[in-house]
Amino acid sequence: MKGLAMLGIGKIGWIEKDRPICGPMDAVVRPLALAPCTSDVHTVWEGAVGDRKDMILGHEGVAEVVEVGSFVKDFKKGDKVIIPAITPDWNSLEAQAGFSMHSHGALGGWKYSNTKDGVFSEFFHVNDADGNMALLPKGIDPATASMLSDMMPTGAHGVELADVQFGDNVAVIGIGPVGLMAVAFAALRGAARIFAVGSRQICVDVAKKYGATDIVNYREGDIVKQILELTNNKGVDRVVIAGGDVDTFMQAVTILKPGGAIGNVNYLGEGEFIRIPRVEWGVGMGHKRINGGLMPGGRLRMEKLVRLIETKRIDPSLMLTHRFEGLEKVEEGLLLMKDKPRDLIKPVITIKY
Amino acid sequence: MKGLAMLGIGKIGWIEKDRPICGPMDAVVRPLALAPCTSDVHTVWEGAVGDRKDMILGHEGVAEVVEVGSFVKDFKKGDKVIIPAITPDWNSLEAQAGFSMHSHGALGGWKYSNTKDGVFSEFFHVNDADGNMALLPKGIDPATASMLSDMMPTGAHGVELADVQFGDNVAVIGIGPVGLMAVAFAALRGAARIFAVGSRQICVDVAKKYGATDIVNYREGDIVKQILELTNNKGVDRVVIAGGDVDTFMQAVTILKPGGAIGNVNYLGEGEFIRIPRVEWGVGMGHKRINGGLMPGGRLRMEKLVRLIETKRIDPSLMLTHRFEGLEKVEEGLLLMKDKPRDLIKPVITIKY
Amino acid sequence: MKGLAMLGIGKIGWIEKDRPICGPMDAVVRPLALAPCTSDVHTVWEGAVGDRKDMILGHEGVAEVVEVGSFVKDFKKGDKVIIPAITPDWNSLEAQAGFSMHSHGALGGWKYSNTKDGVFSEFFHVNDADGNMALLPKGIDPATASMLSDMMPTGAHGVELADVQFGDNVAVIGIGPVGLMAVAFAALRGAARIFAVGSRQICVDVAKKYGATDIVNYREGDIVKQILELTNNKGVDRVVIAGGDVDTFMQAVTILKPGGAIGNVNYLGEGEFIRIPRVEWGVGMGHKRINGGLMPGGRLRMEKLVRLIETKRIDPSLMLTHRFEGLEKVEEGLLLMKDKPRDLIKPVITIKY
Amino acid sequence: MKGLAMLGIGKIGWIEKDRPICGPMDAVVRPLALAPCTSDVHTVWEGAVGDRKDMILGHEGVAEVVEVGSFVKDFKKGDKVIIPAITPDWNSLEAQAGFSMHSHGALGGWKYSNTKDGVFSEFFHVNDADGNMALLPKGIDPATASMLSDMMPTGAHGVELADVQFGDNVAVIGIGPVGLMAVAFAALRGAARIFAVGSRQICVDVAKKYGATDIVNYREGDIVKQILELTNNKGVDRVVIAGGDVDTFMQAVTILKPGGAIGNVNYLGEGEFIRIPRVEWGVGMGHKRINGGLMPGGRLRMEKLVRLIETKRIDPSLMLTHRFEGLEKVEEGLLLMKDKPRDLIKPVITIKY
Repeated sequence: MKGLAMLGIGKIGWIEKDRPICGPMDAVVRPLALAPCTSDVHTVWEGAVGDRKDMILGHEGVAEVVEVGSFVKDFKKGDKVIIPAITPDWNSLEAQAGFSMHSHGALGGWKYSNTKDGVFSEFFHVNDADGNMALLPKGIDPATASMLSDMMPTGAHGVELADVQFGDNVAVIGIGPVGLMAVAFAALRGAARIFAVGSRQICVDVAKKYGATDIVNYREGDIVKQILELTNNKGVDRVVIAGGDVDTFMQAVTILKPGGAIGNVNYLGEGEFIRIPRVEWGVGMGHKRINGGLMPGGRLRMEKLVRLIETKRIDPSLMLTHRFEGLEKVEEGLLLMKDKPRDLIKPVITIKY
Repeated sequence: MKGLAMLGIGKIGWIEKDRPICGPMDAVVRPLALAPCTSDVHTVWEGAVGDRKDMILGHEGVAEVVEVGSFVKDFKKGDKVIIPAITPDWNSLEAQAGFSMHSHGALGGWKYSNTKDGVFSEFFHVNDADGNMALLPKGIDPATASMLSDMMPTGAHGVELADVQFGDNVAVIGIGPVGLMAVAFAALRGAARIFAVGSRQICVDVAKKYGATDIVNYREGDIVKQILELTNNKGVDRVVIAGGDVDTFMQAVTILKPGGAIGNVNYLGEGEFIRIPRVEWGVGMGHKRINGGLMPGGRLRMEKLVRLIETKRIDPSLMLTHRFEGLEKVEEGLLLMKDKPRDLIKPVITIKY
Repeated sequence: MKGLAMLGIGKIGWIEKDRPICGPMDAVVRPLALAPCTSDVHTVWEGAVGDRKDMILGHEGVAEVVEVGSFVKDFKKGDKVIIPAITPDWNSLEAQAGFSMHSHGALGGWKYSNTKDGVFSEFFHVNDADGNMALLPKGIDPATASMLSDMMPTGAHGVELADVQFGDNVAVIGIGPVGLMAVAFAALRGAARIFAVGSRQICVDVAKKYGATDIVNYREGDIVKQILELTNNKGVDRVVIAGGDVDTFMQAVTILKPGGAIGNVNYLGEGEFIRIPRVEWGVGMGHKRINGGLMPGGRLRMEKLVRLIETKRIDPSLMLTHRFEGLEKVEEGLLLMKDKPRDLIKPVITIKY
Repeated sequence: MKGLAMLGIGKIGWIEKDRPICGPMDAVVRPLALAPCTSDVHTVWEGAVGDRKDMILGHEGVAEVVEVGSFVKDFKKGDKVIIPAITPDWNSLEAQAGFSMHSHGALGGWKYSNTKDGVFSEFFHVNDADGNMALLPKGIDPATASMLSDMMPTGAHGVELADVQFGDNVAVIGIGPVGLMAVAFAALRGAARIFAVGSRQICVDVAKKYGATDIVNYREGDIVKQILELTNNKGVDRVVIAGGDVDTFMQAVTILKPGGAIGNVNYLGEGEFIRIPRVEWGVGMGHKRINGGLMPGGRLRMEKLVRLIETKRIDPSLMLTHRFEGLEKVEEGLLLMKDKPRDLIKPVITIKY
């Protein structure tokens, strides 16, 4: 089979590999919809997870089951399924402790395009099929559903980590696709004012549709100053960090009220350390919680979040600005993600059989 | 001053009383909008809290400040304010433990029309003004805002007690005004399917607008059977009880999945005990949490919830089916609440000066 | 192989069965220490889980690994291991939701002596060995460690469900072995006064050693009256129910303060429903949480709890009043559990090879 | 009246002031036992909270009531009372949100020797007496009880912020008096191994008595390396920071497992920012929670913690290495705290009338 792979740092290309072997608890599937992710860009062109040779890329996708192992109970050939980016080992100690995404070590649930071949391929492998796939409900478009693999659960998790409660004022820093989902989920969890920090017009437009009440453009001045002005110097109850870098925490802590919480879901690609401002953090005693975590994956999460599409609580398709057809187009989609034209939020590739 | 009072069990009438005295931390206010509540009906005609003689009724209202005590810092004469039904003693041990509504004893934060005169009066008293009043933001209609005293926080608290999470399927039993708010807040906290249990057409219509996906009419058969059928015998993740009686818990426990939670905000007026079905409760070990609680009151809650009206996350005015003007009309409103015609959800009375 | 089985309701006997087959993720083990449980008595002589024919009994034990499946990574033949009474299917939706004990349905993690053969046998089977066994640390006596299967985690879970915090006053109703462990874990989680409700002298003595400050004997009068007197009518912050029956909740709710919580770990064997007193439960609004749940099992829990024995935070061997040697003595131990002589807390049987 | 005051940065001395005036909700008290704190040293000799002129020092003490305001219900002249270092305004928005220590602004509940005169005086003032004092139970030594003002609640809060659960392995960094209390409370909340990081022999001895299982001496090498070695490179489940500086978080994050939590209660006196190591923090996604907070004060907390002394769960008097009598000796005690001789843990001064 062929797949779009990272050949080494800075290089991608199509390669041939054997179709993956299906273990007794596993499945082999073929893609119906695929979406490239900024993480793929970090992986290839920044070498963020280190070098990889001939590793197939991609971790967002909806697929059709081609084969299941003998112990798989709930899926069969032909089923259309949602595959999360994170596919934990559910019996690991970390999963038993409630942190399945770190099964067998920090970030250990993140396998696709990290520790095993990803989904940009004619076929791909799903470990623990019963635990890590969810049926695609009838009537849900695979392209839309591909946002369930990573964008929706990551945005939702930022809001959970920030512990948003009814009537909270929330800042969402960064309104790329993850930040946009964080805006939508903050509104969906009862936030009142949502300060969306970003600048690209297309993202601003969608942020407003998803419930942002205030747009804060960092090109127009210090975001701390802007947000403090907008809140009578009170600051916000919660902050979701979905963009920026290691220094974004300086701003996040400064605009946060005592008793508040930060939820980071931004993959911090570089910098030796994150800086927390001492005085603004209440000289260590300000009760400003700093949380950061990889999205929870697995089947249940997929089943719960797809219901939110079914019941029209959220529509991730507003983010799908670029649509392609045919597996080979995944390369163009990925390069688009790399170049980030101003009219792009998220590309998606559908495959017909 | 005159006020509409409970003269004794089963009897109401207008009485004359002295204007309340304003202590150093307190305020005296005059009503701008008032709303009768089913609780007032329970209190008078069912004697639910025991007999009361010449106690002014009512606990839902928006008002204008007439006088503040010498220690009050944040309010002054002329301010328009939201008053919660529950006005805790904030330094009590119970408030320090996080349960301000039970300050100085179970339900001790519920003072209006229970342990002191209520709000259906020319003037009324607010204990701890800085702690228990919130400014009415400009542009919010007092009639709409009167739903902040009890309906909104009670509905919201049911959802909090049921611990609704993203993608949960939720049953809301009872869709009077509190249940309707529970539907709206369940949607606002990320519920997927919402099974609204009720029968009156006007309530059904508003429930759908607030986000109910399935209407379950108890006149059309056992609600347990209906909900199990609608969920492939899986049941729901959460149940909010906002109506029914002590036996409603039998149904609630039966339709709830292990690991789920019940949030009761229904005032249980009669019956010696609540029944929990032993087998369905997992012979004591099914992890079906049973929670029930009085709404949290106080200033912060009012400030947070009014923001949800300001940001248009929720519109309680859809429930205001009957509008009156003039303090004297509060009697007609209360009787309406007692008689519950089929086109009623909630009456409101506004007062002009 | 031979095992002590339930032949039908009310009848036990030794039977011959084939040694269990070891699946790829599983283990087959042979017992080093076994302990009969009151649940076994309920199962056989009360038919509490329904009829069972030739089902080997027992779910508490420490064992030696005889065989492991090809996918098992962390254990090998000869390892001495702790086996929890509850052995979940870790990839089930319920486990993913944090309720592994209800994997694939309410109480579904409880397999031994319920839905498959138990541990009173020459050999027994462990599903998902990597997820459900823990190494027995050197220096820990197998007899002592057999209390890790059920008594320790169940007692601990009662305290967790009751949400005990520093300085809380706690009532523990029932001081059989589970209740005694609840007393010890309540002290170990920072309870101040612990009111232990029981009557047998040997249990009272051990309860005091485990940290009970007040003994409440139900033979000396109404326990509600006694506890209210001992607390100046204030009641307690938390209640753990580890004995009694469906009506024990009437007492538990009555002695509990608003804002408190009940943690039930008592298997409720009979009665149609549990009764919750309406008025004492704050007419539905008293914030008295009612929780009840089966112990969490699995490997991590065993590893965490055995550390508490290693670090001498807790010593379950104080409960081992009757010790036997040889597999055949498990019958005598079980009958002892059935007859409950006054000097019994818990029997244990060790097996040498 | 006379009091020991900060005259300016680096200078202390006895001054004369008027006896404080007692407001209607307040009390005026005279000290029975006083304890100097490292914070007093920071305040005076490091100017940590900025300059102060003629501010009476001290925030730890037990006292006798001399006068109460007209609205005070639960205390009267002659009562012996525990006074917490933190005396919140209980009706503030922050207290209503559960963060009373930040009432009216970050750290706003910390008034003594910060924003008003402290307790090293013939008389001192207690705001909101009903909300902020607790009766000293008979039989509790005032010197011992003076540890309730700050050392016990601060140590306990570190353990709460680190969210210690049954069987967790916990590192406590710093074993001055707050760290020692953190060790004791970690054991009291069910920790298994406790790694106490410190070097002074007297502190090491008491740490072991309080439950430390492993002593890690930073003078004997990198504590990260030592703790990783002691845990087979697994690290710990929780970290309490009770000493060190802004760079201690680098170590704390490195030794912490994914899913773990840090609870900081160390007052960070200098440095522009705290550094969090990017890679060890899971590139932002490692679920290593970073919490830091000022102790909760107020009456309930004092009542709960004093029960732990009454029930002998904890004995803070092991820390009282230096005892004095007479108010004037508070100066010697403070200078001792400044000079920190190797045999010092905590000095206490008792006053007889």
